[in-house]
Amino acid sequence: MNDKETTTEPREPLWDRTLRRIREFWPLGDPAALKDVVGTDLPAADLSKVRAKIDACLAGEGGEVSARARAAELGETYAVLGITGRRRFLELLAASYDVDNESLETAIGEWRLAQDAIARQQAAAGLRDVLEPPRIRLLRQFNGLQGGVKFLVDLRAELIGWARESRELRALDRDICRLLGSWFDIGFLELQRITWNTSAALLEKLIRYEAVHEITSWQDLKNRLEGDRCCYAFFHPHMPHEPLIFVEVALVNGISTSIHQLLDERAPAGDPAGADTAIFYSISNCQAGLAGVSFGNFLIKRVVADLTSKLPNLKTFSTLSPIPGFIDWLRQQEEVPELVDVDSEAVACLRAEPIDVDCFSRLLLPEQSTAGPGEKQRGQHLQQALLQLCARYLLTAKRGRQAWDRVAHFHLTNGAQIRQINWAANRSDRGVRESAGMMVNYLYDLTSIEKHHEAYSSQGHISAAAPVKKLVK
Amino acid sequence: MNDKETTTEPREPLWDRTLRRIREFWPLGDPAALKDVVGTDLPAADLSKVRAKIDACLAGEGGEVSARARAAELGETYAVLGITGRRRFLELLAASYDVDNESLETAIGEWRLAQDAIARQQAAAGLRDVLEPPRIRLLRQFNGLQGGVKFLVDLRAELIGWARESRELRALDRDICRLLGSWFDIGFLELQRITWNTSAALLEKLIRYEAVHEITSWQDLKNRLEGDRCCYAFFHPHMPHEPLIFVEVALVNGISTSIHQLLDERAPAGDPAGADTAIFYSISNCQAGLAGVSFGNFLIKRVVADLTSKLPNLKTFSTLSPIPGFIDWLRQQEEVPELVDVDSEAVACLRAEPIDVDCFSRLLLPEQSTAGPGEKQRGQHLQQALLQLCARYLLTAKRGRQAWDRVAHFHLTNGAQIRQINWAANRSDRGVRESAGMMVNYLYDLTSIEKHHEAYSSQGHISAAAPVKKLVK
Amino acid sequence: MNDKETTTEPREPLWDRTLRRIREFWPLGDPAALKDVVGTDLPAADLSKVRAKIDACLAGEGGEVSARARAAELGETYAVLGITGRRRFLELLAASYDVDNESLETAIGEWRLAQDAIARQQAAAGLRDVLEPPRIRLLRQFNGLQGGVKFLVDLRAELIGWARESRELRALDRDICRLLGSWFDIGFLELQRITWNTSAALLEKLIRYEAVHEITSWQDLKNRLEGDRCCYAFFHPHMPHEPLIFVEVALVNGISTSIHQLLDERAPAGDPAGADTAIFYSISNCQAGLAGVSFGNFLIKRVVADLTSKLPNLKTFSTLSPIPGFIDWLRQQEEVPELVDVDSEAVACLRAEPIDVDCFSRLLLPEQSTAGPGEKQRGQHLQQALLQLCARYLLTAKRGRQAWDRVAHFHLTNGAQIRQINWAANRSDRGVRESAGMMVNYLYDLTSIEKHHEAYSSQGHISAAAPVKKLVK
Amino acid sequence: MNDKETTTEPREPLWDRTLRRIREFWPLGDPAALKDVVGTDLPAADLSKVRAKIDACLAGEGGEVSARARAAELGETYAVLGITGRRRFLELLAASYDVDNESLETAIGEWRLAQDAIARQQAAAGLRDVLEPPRIRLLRQFNGLQGGVKFLVDLRAELIGWARESRELRALDRDICRLLGSWFDIGFLELQRITWNTSAALLEKLIRYEAVHEITSWQDLKNRLEGDRCCYAFFHPHMPHEPLIFVEVALVNGISTSIHQLLDERAPAGDPAGADTAIFYSISNCQAGLAGVSFGNFLIKRVVADLTSKLPNLKTFSTLSPIPGFIDWLRQQEEVPELVDVDSEAVACLRAEPIDVDCFSRLLLPEQSTAGPGEKQRGQHLQQALLQLCARYLLTAKRGRQAWDRVAHFHLTNGAQIRQINWAANRSDRGVRESAGMMVNYLYDLTSIEKHHEAYSSQGHISAAAPVKKLVK
Repeated sequence: MNDKETTTEPREPLWDRTLRRIREFWPLGDPAALKDVVGTDLPAADLSKVRAKIDACLAGEGGEVSARARAAELGETYAVLGITGRRRFLELLAASYDVDNESLETAIGEWRLAQDAIARQQAAAGLRDVLEPPRIRLLRQFNGLQGGVKFLVDLRAELIGWARESRELRALDRDICRLLGSWFDIGFLELQRITWNTSAALLEKLIRYEAVHEITSWQDLKNRLEGDRCCYAFFHPHMPHEPLIFVEVALVNGISTSIHQLLDERAPAGDPAGADTAIFYSISNCQAGLAGVSFGNFLIKRVVADLTSKLPNLKTFSTLSPIPGFIDWLRQQEEVPELVDVDSEAVACLRAEPIDVDCFSRLLLPEQSTAGPGEKQRGQHLQQALLQLCARYLLTAKRGRQAWDRVAHFHLTNGAQIRQINWAANRSDRGVRESAGMMVNYLYDLTSIEKHHEAYSSQGHISAAAPVKKLVK
Repeated sequence: MNDKETTTEPREPLWDRTLRRIREFWPLGDPAALKDVVGTDLPAADLSKVRAKIDACLAGEGGEVSARARAAELGETYAVLGITGRRRFLELLAASYDVDNESLETAIGEWRLAQDAIARQQAAAGLRDVLEPPRIRLLRQFNGLQGGVKFLVDLRAELIGWARESRELRALDRDICRLLGSWFDIGFLELQRITWNTSAALLEKLIRYEAVHEITSWQDLKNRLEGDRCCYAFFHPHMPHEPLIFVEVALVNGISTSIHQLLDERAPAGDPAGADTAIFYSISNCQAGLAGVSFGNFLIKRVVADLTSKLPNLKTFSTLSPIPGFIDWLRQQEEVPELVDVDSEAVACLRAEPIDVDCFSRLLLPEQSTAGPGEKQRGQHLQQALLQLCARYLLTAKRGRQAWDRVAHFHLTNGAQIRQINWAANRSDRGVRESAGMMVNYLYDLTSIEKHHEAYSSQGHISAAAPVKKLVK
Repeated sequence: MNDKETTTEPREPLWDRTLRRIREFWPLGDPAALKDVVGTDLPAADLSKVRAKIDACLAGEGGEVSARARAAELGETYAVLGITGRRRFLELLAASYDVDNESLETAIGEWRLAQDAIARQQAAAGLRDVLEPPRIRLLRQFNGLQGGVKFLVDLRAELIGWARESRELRALDRDICRLLGSWFDIGFLELQRITWNTSAALLEKLIRYEAVHEITSWQDLKNRLEGDRCCYAFFHPHMPHEPLIFVEVALVNGISTSIHQLLDERAPAGDPAGADTAIFYSISNCQAGLAGVSFGNFLIKRVVADLTSKLPNLKTFSTLSPIPGFIDWLRQQEEVPELVDVDSEAVACLRAEPIDVDCFSRLLLPEQSTAGPGEKQRGQHLQQALLQLCARYLLTAKRGRQAWDRVAHFHLTNGAQIRQINWAANRSDRGVRESAGMMVNYLYDLTSIEKHHEAYSSQGHISAAAPVKKLVK
Repeated sequence: MNDKETTTEPREPLWDRTLRRIREFWPLGDPAALKDVVGTDLPAADLSKVRAKIDACLAGEGGEVSARARAAELGETYAVLGITGRRRFLELLAASYDVDNESLETAIGEWRLAQDAIARQQAAAGLRDVLEPPRIRLLRQFNGLQGGVKFLVDLRAELIGWARESRELRALDRDICRLLGSWFDIGFLELQRITWNTSAALLEKLIRYEAVHEITSWQDLKNRLEGDRCCYAFFHPHMPHEPLIFVEVALVNGISTSIHQLLDERAPAGDPAGADTAIFYSISNCQAGLAGVSFGNFLIKRVVADLTSKLPNLKTFSTLSPIPGFIDWLRQQEEVPELVDVDSEAVACLRAEPIDVDCFSRLLLPEQSTAGPGEKQRGQHLQQALLQLCARYLLTAKRGRQAWDRVAHFHLTNGAQIRQINWAANRSDRGVRESAGMMVNYLYDLTSIEKHHEAYSSQGHISAAAPVKKLVK
C-alpha cells in the first residue's frame, strides 16, 4: 500500500532507448562480433568533427544538463562506428586528452611557490585538477546517463584487446580502469541470491557468462539453483540487469573431490539443512570490461556470511577449483625429477601440445578399462608423480611474490589455504588439458583467513595443509 | 511472484545497528544538541590511541574487509565523544593526515625525471596518489559501511561550524566536501514523488527539514501533498530514508503572486489536470553536512520533466521565491534615491533592526485598515519605492559576478529569469523582515534556460522581464 | 529485476474513479454526514426506472461483462441519492427482490417428485438457486468492480441503522451480512504490522477508527507504534487501503493493571526483546458495515503467533480491557448486597445517570487527596464492594448462554480466561462512567484456549482465575 | 522505503510445508502419475477412522482455528493415499456427506408452517443451510489453509476422471465445481503479462501447460514473449505461482492465416507499435481441476483492453484457432454432397482413421511438389470442397443450441464472429488429423460482441462474415 511513486525521467532514458536500438545493429563490448558490422571507419574529416564534439563536452558550456546530453551524443557517435572507427576514436582520446604536461608544470610551480599551509593546500587542489586527464572528465559524465555505466564497461571491453598492442591505448585503459574501479567500489555492490524464481532474462545471462563448467541446458541450470545447490551474484545499481560476478555453491557433507559428482544432473539432491560443507565450485566474472576491478574477494566472504546465517549446520567452506596454469608451467620445466619413474608414453602424452586427451585418459584411469596389473601400477606411478608435481607447482611456482597459477593467486589473496589436490577430479577435455584432470580444494577457514591473507600479501607465503606440503619433497 | 531474494549481510549491518544505538544517546550532525551530552573529551592519552587506530586503518593490514571493520570501530570512537572530544578528533585529522609535502616533492621529482610518455604517465599516477590526503583515504572507507554515508554527512555538519574558526579544519572540510561531492554525483540520485501515501517516518522529516515556509501540522503537510499540490525529493541509494532536498509545487492557473493563498489550508483544491502553471514555492536542503554539494539545479529540471509528462496542460514553470538579502542590503546603502519621496516614518521603520513588523504592516496595507486617502497615497508611494529598490537590488547587487541574493543566484545559475516582483506577497514576520513582504517569481522557460545560464555563468548577465527592468531607472 | 508487469484494466477501474469523484460530494457509509447532502429523494417515477435497471441486471443480458457494467451504473445511481432516496432504494430491494415464494414452492414440489438420488440432487440444486434472493445475486456482482467491495460495506453501514426500524430492511441486512461474511472469509484476510513506516494515509485512518482509547495526536500515534509498542491490522485484498480491525499491543514485564501507564507518552520505552508479556490494550473494528462479520478471534491468535516467532521471550499474552456494560447492569440491579456497607454518598453517586465523575473520583482515590483515616477506610470499603460486584457481573451476568458484557463475550469466545480485575485502572470520564474506573485482564493461555472456548461455547462456562472467583461469595 | 511489514504466520503455513513435502512423493492432480505410487488403499478399518475425522471436522469442536487444523490433517490423510485409497476416500464423501433428505424434509415443513414474511425468511435461511452438503462445508475450510486452494483443485482433477464412471462421484464433482466456481469468481483474478523477465519457475509451467501449439524449447518460448509477441495469464491470489489460463498473442499487420509463419523462430520480429492487428493464436487452460469454471471469456476482453491502452494502433482483434472437431464430425456424416466431385483417393484418405498425413499432405499442397496440371486441379477441387464442408460444419453442426465444435462454442459465447477459414493453415500432423490442415479466424469486434453474444446465447445464432456464409450453399 505504500509503494513509492516513481518518476518518469530517470537519468536520460531517451539516450538509453537510443542506445538499445543501436545495440541491435552495432554490437558493443564484443570486438569479435564487431568485425562484420558495417560501421564508419572514422576518416580524418569525421575525426575532426569528433574532436570538436569532445572539446564542446569538456568546455562544459550550457550547464551540467546539456553537458550530459552532449556526452550521450558522443556515445552514440562511438556506438555506430565500425571496428576501425572505434579504434581511431579511442586513439584520439589516448593521444590528445591525457594530462597536459605544461599545465602540470605550471601547477607544480605554483605549489612550489606557495608560502603557507593554506596556499599549499590550494595549490595541491590545483595539481589534483590538472592531474585528472580530460578524457576521464569526459567519460565520467556517462555515470549520469541511463545505460551509461554499461556503455563504458563495454567500451573498455573493446579497448582492452587493442591496449595490448599500443602503449598509448594502454595508458588510456589504465585511466578508464581507475575510473571504473571508483564506480564499482564494493560499497555500491548488491549481493543477490539467484534462484529458479529469478527472471529468465537474467538466468539466460548466467548460461552465457558461466566460464568454468559450461551450463549445457536449462535443466542443468535449474539443478545448479535448487535443492542442495545455490548461486549468488553481485550487481551494481546502475546495471541492475547485468550480473558482475557469480558463484555457484554445492551444499554437501564433507569436502567434494570431483566435479563430476557435483555436475551430475541425475544425482539425488541432498538436504541443504543437513549439509556441513559448502563447496564453491564455479566463479565467473561476467563483464570483460571490468577486468582488473576486483570484487571476487568480497563475494565469497559475503556468501559465507549469508549461508552461515541461514544454514547454521555449515562448518566448512571450501572451493573445488581448476588449476589452469599447471600443464603450461609443466611444459616450461626442463628437468622434472618427479617424472623420472613415469613411463615414457605418459610423459610424451603430457608434453604433447595440446595433451592427447584420449591417450591420457587411458593412462589416467586404468582401473576403468580392463587393465592388467602392470598398467595399474603404471597408472599409480603417474598419479603419484603428477600429484607431487602439482603440489610443487602450487606451492613454489611464482611470478614475483604472486602464485603463478591465477586461480591460486585469487584464493590465496582472499586468505584461503591449499587443502588438498584431487586426482581425476575433472576428466573433461579442458580439465585434462589444463591440469591433467586434477583439481584443488582451497579452504576458507574464517578464523585464519586474515592471517593467511596477510602472510601471502606481504611475504608471498602460501599456506597449505600438511598432506599437500608433504607431497613436495 | 518474482521477488528477488535478499541476502542477510549487506554492508556491515552490525555496525549500522551499533551506530543506531549510539545515536540514541549521542546526537550526530547537530552540534547544538551535543552540548549537553556527556561524552569523553579525548584527553592526550586517548588521542594517541585514536592516532594508532587511524594509522592501522591506513596501513590497510588484513585486507579490505578488516580495514572496513576498523573504520567502523573508528566511527564508533568518534560517535561516543563529547563536543570537545569530537573537535579534537577532527583537529587530529586536519593536522596530521593531510597531503605529505615531502612525498609530494619526491613524486614531483620523479615526474620531472620521466623520460617518455609512459614513464610520465606512471609518474603522474604516483603524483595523483600522493595528492590524495590520507584522511580522505580513511573516510572513503565509510562508503562501504551501512549507515556510513550518513555518518560522514553528519560528521561534516559538525565540522562546518568549527571550520569557520580554523584554517586547518577549513582545509579538512574542503577535502570532505570534495569526497561527498563525488559520492553524491547526480548520477546516483533518485527522484521520488512524496505523497500522503509516503511513510509517516519520512513525512515527519519533511516537517523537520522544511526551511522556507514552516509546516505547522500534519494537516498542513497533507494539504501540501494532495490535490493541486505535489512534492518531490532527491534520495541517495545509501541513505534511502533521508531526503537530500525537496521542493513543493502548486499547480495553478496563472503565476501565483502571494504565498498566503498557496498556504491557505481552507482554500478549495483546484484540478491539477486543468492547471497551466506549476509554482515552485519552497525548496529545502535537508542535510547540513552537504552544504556546498549542489543538486537543486537538477531537482527542478527533473521535476519539470516529470510534471510535463504527467500533466501536459502545464505550460509555465515558475517559482514564488523569498528575497532573503534585500533588507540587509538596503541597510548597507547610504544613498537611496528611491526613498526620497517616502515619508520618514516608513523609512525609519525599514531602517530599524529588525524591522518593526507591526508598524510596517500598517504602512504596507493601508487599504485593509480604515485608511484615509492620504494614508493610501503614502502607501502607494512606499510600494512604488520598494518595488523599484528591490528591482535594483536583484538586477545590480553583486558579489563579484554573482547576484548578491543567494536565492537569486541559485535560480539564475539554473538559467531562470526574473519574471516579476510581488508586493505584499509574504506578510509573515520573516517575510517582512527579510524583504519588506515582497517575493519574486523566477521563470523557468525551457527554451531559454540554457542561454540564460550561459550568459549568467560566464558574464554575470542577469535576465529579467521587461517590466522588472523598467523599475530600474 | 523481476518486477511483474501490471496490466491497465483491473476490475473496472473506470467505475472506481467515478465512484471516488462521487464520494467527494456524496458521503458513503456515514448516514450522519448524509443528512445535509443534496441528493434526489427518488420519487415514484424514478423508482420505477431503478426497478427497470435492477431487472436488466438480473436478466443478465449481454454476458457477464456488461452485467457488471450495469451493476456499476446501479451503484452510481445509489451513490448520488440523498438520505431519503437511499432508504427508498433499499426498501425496493427489500420488498421486491427477496426469495420468490411461488418459485420456492414449485422447486419443493420438484424435489418431492424426484425419484432417485440423481434427480434429487438436481432438484436440490434447483432449490438452492431459488433460495438465493435476487438482490444477493445482484449485489454479488460488486465483487468484480474495483471499489465495489468497499461500496457494499458502506451501503450496509447505512442500512444497519434503518434495519432497526423495519423488519423488511432487517431481512435485507441479514442477506447482505451473509454475503459479506463469505467475501470476508478468514482465508482471504492478510495480517499486516503497522509501523511508523506505514503510509500517513493509512495511519490517519487508525486515528479515525481507534474506538477504545482515543489517539490524541500524531505523536501519540507514533508512541503506539514504536519501541515497546506495536500494532497489527487485518486487510482484505479488495480493500487494500482500508484496515478491517486493528489491535494495539504493549510489550512489558508482568501484566499491566492500569491503562494510564500504557498511554503515557513521556514514559521511557522498554526493550521489547526483554519483555515477557504482551498486553492487547485496544482492539477496534474499522468498518461499521462489517458488524456481525467476525475476525477479531483470528486477529489475536495470528498476532500471538507472529509475536512469539519474533520475540521468543514473550511468555504471557493478556488483554487490558474495558468493562463497558458494568454500570448499566448495576443500575438494573434492585438488590445489591455488596453495597450494603458502602456509604450512601458513594451509592448515590454510582446510581446517578451518568455517574458524577468528579464526585466518584474523589471517593475512588482518597489517598491522593488529603484524606483522613475515615475517608480512606470508606474508600477501601467502596473498592472491595465494587471489585466483588464486578466479579459477580463478569462471572454471572448473562444473556442466554452469553456473557452480558460484550467485551467479555468476545474474549471468552476466543477461549480467554478472566485473569484479574484492576481497581482505578481507567480514571478517564469514560472509564468511570462505564465501569467505575475498573478494567479487566483476559488471559490468552495458548495451552487452554481451545478447552475454554469449547466450555464457553457449548455450556456457557466462564473461566476465571481463582482470586476472581473468590470475589464472588 | 515504505515496505509493508510482513508477518510470519499467513494461513497455516506449516501445513503448506507438510503438503509440499508430501507432494514430492505422492503426486497430486495427476492420476496417471499416481498409478505407480505406493500409498495405502484405505481398507475398511482405516475408512472408519477417516469417517471419524470428517465427523470431527464437521462438528466444529474447538473453534474455527482447530477446525482448520483438522482440515489440514484430513488433507494429509488424502495426500498419502494411493490411487485406490483416494477413490475410496472420495466415494465416502459422495455417499455419506451429501444433503440430508430428512433434514431437508423437516426444513421444508418449517417453511410451510411459517406464518409471516419474517418467519418465512428465517425458514428459508434454515432451508439454505440444510441444502449445503456437509462435504462442501468440510472442503470450504481448505480456503483458509496455505496451499489449500491448489489442493482442492488437484483433488478435483483426480475426481473428474472417476466421476465419468459413477453417478455419485459425478454429484460430488458438481458440488466441488460449484465451490471452486465461487472461489475463482472473476472478481478475484489478476491479469499479469508474462515476459522474458518473468521467473523461470513460472515460464517452465507455461511450457508444460501449453496445450495448442507445443513449446519446443526455451528459445521457442522466448520468441513467444518478446518483440511482436506477448502473453497474458490469469492468477488467483491463493495460487500465486500457478497460472490458471494463458493466451499468446502476435502483433501483426493484417489477419494471420497460417500458424507456421507465427511459430517460425527465425522470422524477423515486427515492430509492435506499428501493428494493426492482434492475433490470439493459443489459449491454454492450466488447471485440469478447474474444468467447467470459466474465465477465458474475461481473459480475452481484459487483454484486448490492456493492449488497446498500450498500443493504440491496434484496430483488429482476431484469433487463429484450431477446428478440433471437424474430421470427427465429417466421419459421422453419411452423405457428403461437397465431396462428390473430389477424387476417391482423397476421400479415402480423409475417411481413414486416423488420416494418413503423408498422403493427405501430398494432396493438400500439390503446388509444392512437382505436380502436373491434373494434380493441381484435383487439389483445387479438394480445397474448395473442404472449405465448403468446414463452413457447413462451423455454421450448422450443433449439440442442442451450442456449436458442435468446442473452440467455436467458446469464441461464439464470447461474442466473436467467424471471420474466415484458412486453407493449409496448420500442416502439422495434429492439424491435418483434426481439421485437414484448416484453421479459422474468430473476429472480436468490440462494437458487436455484446450483440453476437446475446444472439448466440439465447437463440444459438452463429455470426459469420459474408464469404464464410457464401461457402455454405
